[in-house]
Amino acid sequence: MRRGRGRRQDRQTAEIIEFQNPAPGGLEGGSYRPLTRADIERIVGAAYDVLARTGVEVMPSPCRDLFERAGCRIDSSINRVFIPANVIDEARTHLRHEVLLAGRDPAHDLELSGRRVYLGTGGQAVKIMDLDDTVRETVLADNFHIGRLVDTLHHVHFYMRPVVCRDLETPDIDINQLYACLAATKKHVMSNAYLPERVADIREVGNMVAGGADTFDARPPVSLTACWTVSPLRYAMETVEILDEIIEHGIPVVTSSAPQAGATSPASLAGTLVQITAEQLSGLTYVNLKKPGYPLIMGCVPAQADLRTGAFTGGSAEFALLNAACAQIAQYLKMPVYNSSGIADAKIGDAQAGFEKGMTTAAAALAGSNYVHHSAGFLESLLAVAYEQYVIDNDINGAIMRLARGIEVSDATLAVDVIHDVCTGPNHFLGHPDTLARMKEEYLYPEVFDRASRDDWEAAGEKDIREIAKLHARQVLENHWPVAIDPSVDKELRARFDILLPETAMRPGGWPGP
Amino acid sequence: MRRGRGRRQDRQTAEIIEFQNPAPGGLEGGSYRPLTRADIERIVGAAYDVLARTGVEVMPSPCRDLFERAGCRIDSSINRVFIPANVIDEARTHLRHEVLLAGRDPAHDLELSGRRVYLGTGGQAVKIMDLDDTVRETVLADNFHIGRLVDTLHHVHFYMRPVVCRDLETPDIDINQLYACLAATKKHVMSNAYLPERVADIREVGNMVAGGADTFDARPPVSLTACWTVSPLRYAMETVEILDEIIEHGIPVVTSSAPQAGATSPASLAGTLVQITAEQLSGLTYVNLKKPGYPLIMGCVPAQADLRTGAFTGGSAEFALLNAACAQIAQYLKMPVYNSSGIADAKIGDAQAGFEKGMTTAAAALAGSNYVHHSAGFLESLLAVAYEQYVIDNDINGAIMRLARGIEVSDATLAVDVIHDVCTGPNHFLGHPDTLARMKEEYLYPEVFDRASRDDWEAAGEKDIREIAKLHARQVLENHWPVAIDPSVDKELRARFDILLPETAMRPGGWPGP
Repeated sequence: MRRGRGRRQDRQTAEIIEFQNPAPGGLEGGSYRPLTRADIERIVGAAYDVLARTGVEVMPSPCRDLFERAGCRIDSSINRVFIPANVIDEARTHLRHEVLLAGRDPAHDLELSGRRVYLGTGGQAVKIMDLDDTVRETVLADNFHIGRLVDTLHHVHFYMRPVVCRDLETPDIDINQLYACLAATKKHVMSNAYLPERVADIREVGNMVAGGADTFDARPPVSLTACWTVSPLRYAMETVEILDEIIEHGIPVVTSSAPQAGATSPASLAGTLVQITAEQLSGLTYVNLKKPGYPLIMGCVPAQADLRTGAFTGGSAEFALLNAACAQIAQYLKMPVYNSSGIADAKIGDAQAGFEKGMTTAAAALAGSNYVHHSAGFLESLLAVAYEQYVIDNDINGAIMRLARGIEVSDATLAVDVIHDVCTGPNHFLGHPDTLARMKEEYLYPEVFDRASRDDWEAAGEKDIREIAKLHARQVLENHWPVAIDPSVDKELRARFDILLPETAMRPGGWPGP
Repeated sequence: MRRGRGRRQDRQTAEIIEFQNPAPGGLEGGSYRPLTRADIERIVGAAYDVLARTGVEVMPSPCRDLFERAGCRIDSSINRVFIPANVIDEARTHLRHEVLLAGRDPAHDLELSGRRVYLGTGGQAVKIMDLDDTVRETVLADNFHIGRLVDTLHHVHFYMRPVVCRDLETPDIDINQLYACLAATKKHVMSNAYLPERVADIREVGNMVAGGADTFDARPPVSLTACWTVSPLRYAMETVEILDEIIEHGIPVVTSSAPQAGATSPASLAGTLVQITAEQLSGLTYVNLKKPGYPLIMGCVPAQADLRTGAFTGGSAEFALLNAACAQIAQYLKMPVYNSSGIADAKIGDAQAGFEKGMTTAAAALAGSNYVHHSAGFLESLLAVAYEQYVIDNDINGAIMRLARGIEVSDATLAVDVIHDVCTGPNHFLGHPDTLARMKEEYLYPEVFDRASRDDWEAAGEKDIREIAKLHARQVLENHWPVAIDPSVDKELRARFDILLPETAMRPGGWPGP
């Protein structure tokens, strides 16, 4: 194989190629089908059986009363609700098949449905690795600074609140974590609520930053997750209370269940899929009983326990399979899906991390998952994030989106005449007009990944991509200060709520480094 | 999400889990279909059109005479052979749909057909990175030492001669590179021939090491590649001569064509697929005209030029798409396929390398490619290999094979009763007999990839996976000295041929390090 390395040409053409995204969020995946149609039907059928026979554990509550009124049998002695097929089927007739999660810039809208793919951040890291590799507890301000970085990354399509505010008391967290995200980027923000009494405020904050009018029904700028089950098949009553409030306030919601195969669900992958499908069917039944046609997203967060140790594992093939399969099941149920990728078990952004992220994100995206969270920034099996990892994952996600876009086959792309021209004339493909025309639309160019020759790479300091990504992240963190909330609205917000992120942290010089 | 980390348990169970491969080579991929059936038909149809209208360039030769006798029109003024559909169709009736490449241990047999997947090394690196990160020219002995390492790696299913012997003169290379590989492992060895007059010797060496009798027709222990075209659509007459000799001697062969989209084939991915399909159809026509039913493998090595620089690029989504699509086209033609993955553009084994390898290997394996070469060891866009990279890629390949295996759906795996047991009884899934029974068959455990807690990882020296892989590689290179050629046969070989690998290099202490 021959290759050429034109350094001078590199510099010249780099200047004329401004960013143009040949693989934007929202394109359709679906070319990867780990389950057959018959497999999916058996899994869903088994989930129905589980709900009718094994049921879900629900303590006495308005939730349980609602299930009972809908025709479910309750066994109070063991607090289990048995959901018959007809109740689930009735709820499914009301399912909303498409859910819009709006960006405050419409370019960032997420139209969740079918096999459309969006990749973004995920939540609940408790540690962050600073650019000097120090690992420390996460704080409120991290949600703002990571958000500024994500604001610049083309292949991170939404911003789910990434880290836990370990410096705040619970009553302060809900509004402050939301504010920190909204202040950093106009991409869609997903967060969560720790307290039911904060849910109304969350809607209010969303409306304020989105321009003042109540836009939630048409263009919700904020959505929430509710981890309303504890696997296997047990309702977490405190979170059900929050879910009730969310539904009351019409905020799009993800009902998230997170079984770990081998620990909190069967070790067989198919069995874990049955259980998560049962959990999700019970959730969609409940939400649609409460408010038919509710903007609900199926929150599948299957993971795996390493059965040698019991440790949570997110970088495995089995994890990738579970998440891809959930996308197929959601498509079968005609429901938007939220799942995971990019969970590296590696502690730093090394080859293992790059691989684990690539495999899991490829599986989710190619299967046509709609809202793939965790797909930027994570390390250490969901415990930690790192700035440079967001930059690395941006290039990973871009390539995966290009992979998901696939191959266009048309008379023009078949290029029979181009081949004839070049073979029978003096032309070379590199100089052919067809090549120049396709340069930007057919190919995605990475933002930090390195394609230089070894000589050029050595001359640039022989840097591991992690070092390059750190330099990139530092550059952004020092210089990119978006004003994603209008200053007058910001003033109102600070008057109305106890906003703890200091204004000084939101201006040049506000990043503490290192 | 909760997780537990039982360190003591880790050590205990590690001892009782000996290696058992839940995802061996030869399992079926095919759940990823980037092309629709209609797309494939259009591409193959366009390739037929190209062969009839544009044709292939073939200089006057017995090859061209054979095409002419078969009914192809020749234009001598431009040295082009135009191959009509009926000639291709006739050749396709003779195609061998399954090709066995034998290991000298039957456990390593490769049964290439349909969607069966095998991953292994690839050829022609000109540089190697030693364990001290020094990059130097490759030499004969590297083929032996890399082979010893590959001999220990469960997820590298075959051994294709990995590096060019830059220390040898051409007449010495063919037999010596083959010997170095065969001496290192009983996995199937694929190599190449630089000189037509060495092909008979290659068959002889293969027979000698396989036990003496002529086993090529039943169990060929050696196969060859022949890069008989220079894209676009030009026959390389020196290599055609070698191909003729190979066919004469009945050695299984890969006809390999390697267009670079945008440089030596159209920039459109579909157009590159048309061209490579045309090149391959001309090759299968030629080989089956010479010897109907020949053990031939479709050698698709599509790649991409980075159109900003013209540089060869192998770590991109576009590359992954091209290779997956070639597998589909081969399956449509009912022909075993050889293609590529694992070509990192990264210069060292960093996160970029891990990602590039994972994405491209996942695409090829999930599409059901039969013989995926380059999928271990490579860096620097095919220019270099590194010892530790083989170790890293072994874990990557294992995970990808597990991914390709997919999800078994059966009454047992649906686990409806297991879910019922755990939800209604005192059981936890971790202690359930079903979980223990599935621990080894459902899950693949990585060999070097790290799933330890951060504390344990820090206590072990905070090592990047590349460092861990280097330690592993060093351990193997110092201690694993397989005797893959019977000593008496080795003596005969050294008497019969000018074997240049010194016997001292093949015993403990024979690895020069570092």
